[in-house]
Amino acid sequence: MTANGRPRAPLMTNTQADRVKEVARLAGRPSRLRRREFLAEGPQAVREALRLHLTRVDAGAGGVVVDFFATDEALARHDDIAELLVHPTAPRLRMVTPEVLAAMSSTVTPQGFIAVCRFVDTPLDEILASGPRLVAVLVEVRDPGNAGTIIRAADAAGADAVILTGGSVDLYNPKTVRSTVGSVFHLGVVTGADVQDLPARLRAAGLTILAADGHGSSSLDDLQEASESRRFAGSQGDGDSRPPSSGGDDPQPPTPQPTTPWPTGEPSRSVAAASSAADDVRLEDPAAWLFGNEAQGLADTVTAAADARVAVPIYGSAESLNVGTAATVCLYASARAQRAR
Amino acid sequence: MTANGRPRAPLMTNTQADRVKEVARLAGRPSRLRRREFLAEGPQAVREALRLHLTRVDAGAGGVVVDFFATDEALARHDDIAELLVHPTAPRLRMVTPEVLAAMSSTVTPQGFIAVCRFVDTPLDEILASGPRLVAVLVEVRDPGNAGTIIRAADAAGADAVILTGGSVDLYNPKTVRSTVGSVFHLGVVTGADVQDLPARLRAAGLTILAADGHGSSSLDDLQEASESRRFAGSQGDGDSRPPSSGGDDPQPPTPQPTTPWPTGEPSRSVAAASSAADDVRLEDPAAWLFGNEAQGLADTVTAAADARVAVPIYGSAESLNVGTAATVCLYASARAQRAR
Repeated sequence: MTANGRPRAPLMTNTQADRVKEVARLAGRPSRLRRREFLAEGPQAVREALRLHLTRVDAGAGGVVVDFFATDEALARHDDIAELLVHPTAPRLRMVTPEVLAAMSSTVTPQGFIAVCRFVDTPLDEILASGPRLVAVLVEVRDPGNAGTIIRAADAAGADAVILTGGSVDLYNPKTVRSTVGSVFHLGVVTGADVQDLPARLRAAGLTILAADGHGSSSLDDLQEASESRRFAGSQGDGDSRPPSSGGDDPQPPTPQPTTPWPTGEPSRSVAAASSAADDVRLEDPAAWLFGNEAQGLADTVTAAADARVAVPIYGSAESLNVGTAATVCLYASARAQRAR
Repeated sequence: MTANGRPRAPLMTNTQADRVKEVARLAGRPSRLRRREFLAEGPQAVREALRLHLTRVDAGAGGVVVDFFATDEALARHDDIAELLVHPTAPRLRMVTPEVLAAMSSTVTPQGFIAVCRFVDTPLDEILASGPRLVAVLVEVRDPGNAGTIIRAADAAGADAVILTGGSVDLYNPKTVRSTVGSVFHLGVVTGADVQDLPARLRAAGLTILAADGHGSSSLDDLQEASESRRFAGSQGDGDSRPPSSGGDDPQPPTPQPTTPWPTGEPSRSVAAASSAADDVRLEDPAAWLFGNEAQGLADTVTAAADARVAVPIYGSAESLNVGTAATVCLYASARAQRAR
């Protein structure tokens, strides 16, 4: 499978070549920071890098892919990638032997493709000015797999952006990039955000700030319940509406009135907490979710700046969810509520 | 910190002792299968192993923990574990040096505790006879981290059991056990189930069978929407009820019956598909979710035996979710619908 009609460079066979060593060094942070370049590896990641590259170049912006390396075998296996490379504004394809690819790769199973990419993060201002409706904020999330999983889940949930604070894992760590499975090229990603400064700026951009916190005082379930209640009670959607089946009484007292539980059949649920969460925060509103460090969670100073501290309910005996799965549940809950509006 | 009132064995200091080598060999499958024992490592896992051990012994059943190893430093840091060990039916505590612990451990950061445990899986018959309402089935899930994440998420979502088919990763692989963060000791786990035979047996146990499938014809969103619609429309719950707010326009022609779109504002959604999913399958009913292999997903022969093939909706540009996060979203959706019944 050749990229027809374009002159092809000779096969790179020398694993000791300077360019091979340069690319390999991008697995390390100092080299990445110096060159402002990183590695995308494997078919899914390079495909998405190429697509973003073509879109940007066609829009008159700078390209993303600086250099594109592939083995013959990998190109033959992935027609769609070979086709993208035929595009006139595609980056130059450099054919390499499996040995050269392995020498450049950060992984033991490089899967035949490496794209050297320019940094793709976006300034915070730009993201906030674009009117985002769903944003994930990683506050000192340290594990590359977790960060990548959350970026992928945010992309799946239709989030507009992911913001990494200064203390978080490096977005361009090859393990992070790999775990996003191409999503790093799909949505806006901000790096090095200042966590002190961030809540005020998110709020100024019209975002409700939700801190994901296993010990939070609001249950995600209550927020979802309140949101569905508003929706199914009709278009008034004023936060006081409730499902027709729950009877007539009103939790907001004109005079003190019997409070009605959300109709969940769960006696342990605190009606007062549910009501207050529902009053403060509407899951259907534009939101920024804050997700914290794997071991310590979110610092009190951070949760204090949020509009609500929201716990994913634990129905069984697990102590907690991991940050990647908890984030997925939170982001999908927001996405559903927002889209059902 | 000593386990008061119980004679303490002398400190184990010899990294070459036979028992140390025996324990270390449990990191390998042949030794595990021969002894029907496995390793629980780190405070969270050994705590849950101890709790299950005490519960079982107190109930007159066999214990779980065969041998319990700890360093002085780890015991001093975890009072609660030291307290569990004082219980008269607790397993014998063996104090070891950090070097001995490291020699026995499967990890580079063993965190001071190892419990040698008897296999804890339960026969399928026993699980099915117990009237489970929510079950996760792992069909050839191969990555220990994914399997552990799903077991932990199933536990968090209040599932009754996790079933691993024959081709799945070994439940007792130390990486799987570690990723469950103790949940392997919380819910029923079945290993080596026959995937051919399973759907009929699950159905006979009253479970709706839902195949998680990114290309599935039912959207999880539609199932949730239909379930909420039934709930909020009141007690008739007939699957045809819908929210009062959904208004008038009708994409389906006037005769047989005016189908009303689910009020999601998503024009791309197929109303017909949503209706048929809602008719066939009720998310609030007892369910078994099938989750497939990371690369291949579920085989057609498996999805064919399910009551519905359900896709977690992708609102953004991600190609898919990983199996761990997709499973978490599915299990939480079922848990919410069932509990809100």
